[in-house]
Amino acid sequence: MPSPTQPVSDAAIEFGRRVRAHRNEKGWSQERLAEAAGLHWTFVGQVERGRRNLTLHNILKLAEALGVGPEDLVAGIKYEASR
Amino acid sequence: MPSPTQPVSDAAIEFGRRVRAHRNEKGWSQERLAEAAGLHWTFVGQVERGRRNLTLHNILKLAEALGVGPEDLVAGIKYEASR
Repeated sequence: MPSPTQPVSDAAIEFGRRVRAHRNEKGWSQERLAEAAGLHWTFVGQVERGRRNLTLHNILKLAEALGVGPEDLVAGIKYEASR
Repeated sequence: MPSPTQPVSDAAIEFGRRVRAHRNEKGWSQERLAEAAGLHWTFVGQVERGRRNLTLHNILKLAEALGVGPEDLVAGIKYEASR
């Protein structure tokens, strides 16, 4: 298991980058997004830094809170087992 | 935690339905898909029955094995906390 300070995968990094981009577009803080998604703000920070291999439900919660489709957060992302 | 015999959520059910549909389109068994995705075949069966809140990596592995984009497996799916 990668240590929590290390990104989980390039896929998780890309997913997190997209969450951050959509959050910034809304002018929200991580706390605001976490509140809207019903998640802990530290979890949102870890997701944005690519440190979480998050679940389907959390992907859907983040997408809904950001007002985007879950497809926008995963489209074109590939998994590679190099980590 | 719902018991493993119970679906996890409507979202997981819909995700599983799509995995099964794409698998059937390819004429593959669950074992064949599991092998291509690097997952256990029982896991694939549970995903298809909506009994898994699976991770981003496993979503990506299944999509790649099925030859579809991950967006095809999650587009339009909403999370509801009713379960």
